[in-house]
Amino acid sequence: MRIDLNSDLGEGYGPWTMGHDALVLDCVSSANIACGGHAGDPETMFTTLRLAAERGVVVGAHPGYADREGFGRRVIPMQPAEIGRMLAAQIGALAALARMAGTAVRYVKPHGALGNLAAADRTVADAVVQTVMSVDSSLAILAISGTCLEQAARARGVPVFSEVFADRAYLSSGQLMPRSQPGAVLHDVQQATQRLIGFLRSGRMPVAGGEPIALNADSICVHGDSAEAVEMARQIRAQLHAEGITVAPFVG
Amino acid sequence: MRIDLNSDLGEGYGPWTMGHDALVLDCVSSANIACGGHAGDPETMFTTLRLAAERGVVVGAHPGYADREGFGRRVIPMQPAEIGRMLAAQIGALAALARMAGTAVRYVKPHGALGNLAAADRTVADAVVQTVMSVDSSLAILAISGTCLEQAARARGVPVFSEVFADRAYLSSGQLMPRSQPGAVLHDVQQATQRLIGFLRSGRMPVAGGEPIALNADSICVHGDSAEAVEMARQIRAQLHAEGITVAPFVG
Amino acid sequence: MRIDLNSDLGEGYGPWTMGHDALVLDCVSSANIACGGHAGDPETMFTTLRLAAERGVVVGAHPGYADREGFGRRVIPMQPAEIGRMLAAQIGALAALARMAGTAVRYVKPHGALGNLAAADRTVADAVVQTVMSVDSSLAILAISGTCLEQAARARGVPVFSEVFADRAYLSSGQLMPRSQPGAVLHDVQQATQRLIGFLRSGRMPVAGGEPIALNADSICVHGDSAEAVEMARQIRAQLHAEGITVAPFVG
Amino acid sequence: MRIDLNSDLGEGYGPWTMGHDALVLDCVSSANIACGGHAGDPETMFTTLRLAAERGVVVGAHPGYADREGFGRRVIPMQPAEIGRMLAAQIGALAALARMAGTAVRYVKPHGALGNLAAADRTVADAVVQTVMSVDSSLAILAISGTCLEQAARARGVPVFSEVFADRAYLSSGQLMPRSQPGAVLHDVQQATQRLIGFLRSGRMPVAGGEPIALNADSICVHGDSAEAVEMARQIRAQLHAEGITVAPFVG
Repeated sequence: MRIDLNSDLGEGYGPWTMGHDALVLDCVSSANIACGGHAGDPETMFTTLRLAAERGVVVGAHPGYADREGFGRRVIPMQPAEIGRMLAAQIGALAALARMAGTAVRYVKPHGALGNLAAADRTVADAVVQTVMSVDSSLAILAISGTCLEQAARARGVPVFSEVFADRAYLSSGQLMPRSQPGAVLHDVQQATQRLIGFLRSGRMPVAGGEPIALNADSICVHGDSAEAVEMARQIRAQLHAEGITVAPFVG
Repeated sequence: MRIDLNSDLGEGYGPWTMGHDALVLDCVSSANIACGGHAGDPETMFTTLRLAAERGVVVGAHPGYADREGFGRRVIPMQPAEIGRMLAAQIGALAALARMAGTAVRYVKPHGALGNLAAADRTVADAVVQTVMSVDSSLAILAISGTCLEQAARARGVPVFSEVFADRAYLSSGQLMPRSQPGAVLHDVQQATQRLIGFLRSGRMPVAGGEPIALNADSICVHGDSAEAVEMARQIRAQLHAEGITVAPFVG
Repeated sequence: MRIDLNSDLGEGYGPWTMGHDALVLDCVSSANIACGGHAGDPETMFTTLRLAAERGVVVGAHPGYADREGFGRRVIPMQPAEIGRMLAAQIGALAALARMAGTAVRYVKPHGALGNLAAADRTVADAVVQTVMSVDSSLAILAISGTCLEQAARARGVPVFSEVFADRAYLSSGQLMPRSQPGAVLHDVQQATQRLIGFLRSGRMPVAGGEPIALNADSICVHGDSAEAVEMARQIRAQLHAEGITVAPFVG
Repeated sequence: MRIDLNSDLGEGYGPWTMGHDALVLDCVSSANIACGGHAGDPETMFTTLRLAAERGVVVGAHPGYADREGFGRRVIPMQPAEIGRMLAAQIGALAALARMAGTAVRYVKPHGALGNLAAADRTVADAVVQTVMSVDSSLAILAISGTCLEQAARARGVPVFSEVFADRAYLSSGQLMPRSQPGAVLHDVQQATQRLIGFLRSGRMPVAGGEPIALNADSICVHGDSAEAVEMARQIRAQLHAEGITVAPFVG
């Protein structure tokens, strides 16, 4: 058995840092790197790419709305074609820096409000998929499991991989429980890790108020924005290893 | 005989336009397109790329300091390696949008204060050349004739082409007369065109207070920021044609 | 009889210009000046303030969403309190530059998507009014006639003045006909001017498919973004004069 | 005996934080708050203003080059008059938010590269002083002790207060030892505090390789960007108290 661990990284900007990139890069097999939209600048992008390259961690683009003050968490009203052009510029910027850093961008995972929109709105999902294809036909997509983006990629024949969240509660619909609801975020490392390993063994994810549901999972998203998050990432990796589950990138 | 005509294009931003891109694209064989640093955003970049692609105009990247308020005309203190990473991100962004627009970036010409610095400072010139090589080894460089950037590119075996200016006076040193001096800019279309054709025939450029000098010229830079500039570009193209000189891109 | 003429000015940014500020300032009695949010930077703000001061034109702040690429025409999701803080910073910046330019900000008119939201959403309107009061209790508000912003200002005792548009068709509800509908914008100068003078004399504005409606009007909004717009502004001013109607600022 | 303690605060941006503002605000008597140029946005500015107001800490504007990626530490080539307009906009923005937060901006301290330039270049110093006067004639200036800015303010009759650094070595010239030299920064809390108290008692500051020098000191600059820096600020405050020296703002 094998699974990928991914995390959102390179989310600093200029003099500002966010999270514990180097520590998280010791845990994950795939790094989603901010592209200068919601976060990141050429320096942070290059530094994170180098840290990933040194550790053999696979690199993906993590583009988002060009809205630093909102950190890409606000929906900026844009036409799907405009979204596509914004994504292309961000993916291209990271790809060029990746070549400079001796690595290559292998996949794309939309960030924040854009990720949520691409998950729920097929037109936006199609724009994302179309953009990825036209920018570089060898790129894969990393999508939240069970969403429009997954379907749009499959419909166009773009390789798509599905992620589940280690620390988020699920609903019967397969959607994440909104953060506003109590119990939406799992803070207990032991509990989260046990749930995850049960899911990986059974293919069925426990949900709030219902029977466990089937969910595709090629990758597990972990966080690195706090010491607690890094600790959870480490424990997950250690427990997976103890259970004989290999952590390995979903791409090639 | 043949020569390239190039112009700096795509220099709008958001709701703001600059110059007469569509008209200039009817004159030139190579378009230097702003990359989101000193000017440009994904929409302006894509639109300009499409206009160029429709006309068969070759596309180059025109990266500059990420300083919109100063339009890339102010030297922002940066290490050469930082300049390289800034350029890589800009070139990569344009390259991705070019693929989306059905064309490809073929060369790089640094803009404004960065262009002047790369012309005069070999360390910066080397950083530019190194960046171009590592981002895409098939890219050429368009350099001001007789500068450090030309030399740096030759030293690394990167294809480099030289530009002269149709509307700028030259000094015996081969440098442009600073804009602050009287006579630095040629406003008379007829005079500028005649000087240019004389230079193309003889290989020697008239200079202020001295004998004409030899100057490499693979391309002539024309402007499109005013109605007068567009008129000069048109006249130059018409006169070149009348003299039996073909306007054709310097690349491929 | 007297009426104010206002226009949105100072909407350049860095090297980019927009509209014909100096010409429009010869026509209007009040200038709504962009504050560095949707447009403007310290140089454009100061230059426009000086041009207004030289002509004795009253100055207002024209704050908008801090979204240059969208020119403040996109709703950026923000809490009302966040909107208030964004407005305060913009009004304060213009006020300081106004003192430097020997004039003073006398009123506030929200721009674009924010203006539309403050017109339609009482909570946002209240946040705008509250901000204006706490930043400078001597400031007035310029609101689209018949909107929530007008009501919110009246409820708090903030001086509020109402604007109508010279070149926009009205609906029976008192709202502007959406730009997407045919006939929404009046392009004929003569027709627009006649409608306006009829309205000023009768107090009743013609609407699409219904009886003319009563509408408050302390100011008429004119545009300066094209040669045609400037011409309309000039004609309106000349016709008002010919009809014995004085153009004068609504504030003191 | 009494002295002011000041610190640079509010230097986050959007989702990014910097330093330990709330902890430092428990130590200092004056807070220099970033104004949206090198750091800060309306939210961070307002939050910091409120935290200061709640603690009775006096508030100053800390404007800098509008260069977030360089954190205001790079000299952006600008004319003195352009610097003045940039400062006015930043000071005005903070002043408006201060009124909203129930406090008031009382002084101005230029940040980073701009602070260094205003310290060394009298023309820039004059532009800063002139700006402060024209924006609000009741504002004071906080200047590095012994610099051009101090002189320029005195020459115009603007109240000026001098700061010394608790953790920086001085040269015989009265200038700070450049950070590039060994020993430029004092890391030992005990040593730094002892040096400071000796200076406050004697009026003479120890320097590298020479006799102690006389230095004006109305305020001591402390830092809050690391846990160590906060600890030093606390110890300084505690030691000053133990020595019977009152910590109090330099402005009325």
